[in-house]
Amino acid sequence: MTINLLDQIIKNLSRLPGLGPRSARRAVLFLTKHREDLLLPLIKALDGLANSMRVCTRCANIDVIEPCSICTDTKRDPSVICVVEDVADLWALERAKVFSGCYHVLGGTLSALDGRGPEDLFISALITRARSSEISEIILGTSATVDGQTTAHYLADRLAETGVSVSRLAHGLPVGGELDYLDDGTLSAALKARQDF
Amino acid sequence: MTINLLDQIIKNLSRLPGLGPRSARRAVLFLTKHREDLLLPLIKALDGLANSMRVCTRCANIDVIEPCSICTDTKRDPSVICVVEDVADLWALERAKVFSGCYHVLGGTLSALDGRGPEDLFISALITRARSSEISEIILGTSATVDGQTTAHYLADRLAETGVSVSRLAHGLPVGGELDYLDDGTLSAALKARQDF
Repeated sequence: MTINLLDQIIKNLSRLPGLGPRSARRAVLFLTKHREDLLLPLIKALDGLANSMRVCTRCANIDVIEPCSICTDTKRDPSVICVVEDVADLWALERAKVFSGCYHVLGGTLSALDGRGPEDLFISALITRARSSEISEIILGTSATVDGQTTAHYLADRLAETGVSVSRLAHGLPVGGELDYLDDGTLSAALKARQDF
Repeated sequence: MTINLLDQIIKNLSRLPGLGPRSARRAVLFLTKHREDLLLPLIKALDGLANSMRVCTRCANIDVIEPCSICTDTKRDPSVICVVEDVADLWALERAKVFSGCYHVLGGTLSALDGRGPEDLFISALITRARSSEISEIILGTSATVDGQTTAHYLADRLAETGVSVSRLAHGLPVGGELDYLDDGTLSAALKARQDF
């Protein structure tokens, strides 16, 4: 019976973030109508992902080679590490093409509420990397959320003993942001960190 | 390089209705984190769909058997046919468990704007089915949109010559709908089709 097979796909698809049962049904119907040009290429690509996906042992990035293509790229500066919460954050920085160093993916933030401590994140490996002589700077690129900043403070404390230079991303007005629409926290941070013009 | 493989999946996923590049990226990341319990089952189910999907030659429903499981279900009444625009509409009626006859999926509506004429829809097969002696009633279950109602009128004209009884779904207040929020068209239809209490 189709219903079982289709139901299975709908159930699986609706577990993806951003898709509910209704949009999953629409997606399945769309796939049935685009077998050659969408369904088959998608299956092939997902299959490739399932079979060749590797997590980089150095930076926890996802790639099909190990160490990942960023860690092994000779055009990048291995002495600067940007610490990010998630692979999605790494992708965002790569899309912006603004950083040419290497990364370290924590796999989340410290969170008292969700019971995530330092041992649940990829932190000890970061300390080990920081101790190696080739590292000159570590940029804390965690989010400007409470958990993200808690994690940044914790990392700064832990990294202090390694003697490596530690910085964090600037807080302030987002480019294109109107003052009128910004929250008090952002305005306060932007005022405190004001720069000579 | 991972980027190519991941980009390919993101490009394919973002073509699905309801998913943009951003949610496709989140979906891919979610899939990489749930390889065993989501990615592999999803690939298997999609593969099953790609290999065993059939379009029913009688009613144009999608199934893994042909004729489809609804057309071949002996518990259903083959003398009543509900004509719907799309397989999604068939699914909606099946989920509601309110109809025990058979279906006929048109594959869309007539549309002057989009240049879809009767020959682009599964209409001639419907007329052939209507001519067979076993059919007693055809219910026009097209949407209450302009195109849906145009299609219904066209079908009613074409079906008149076959002598089969033709009905359409009632228009009126949706169950749970508040008068205050309903449009003029719905209120007018509900008033015209008022029933004895």
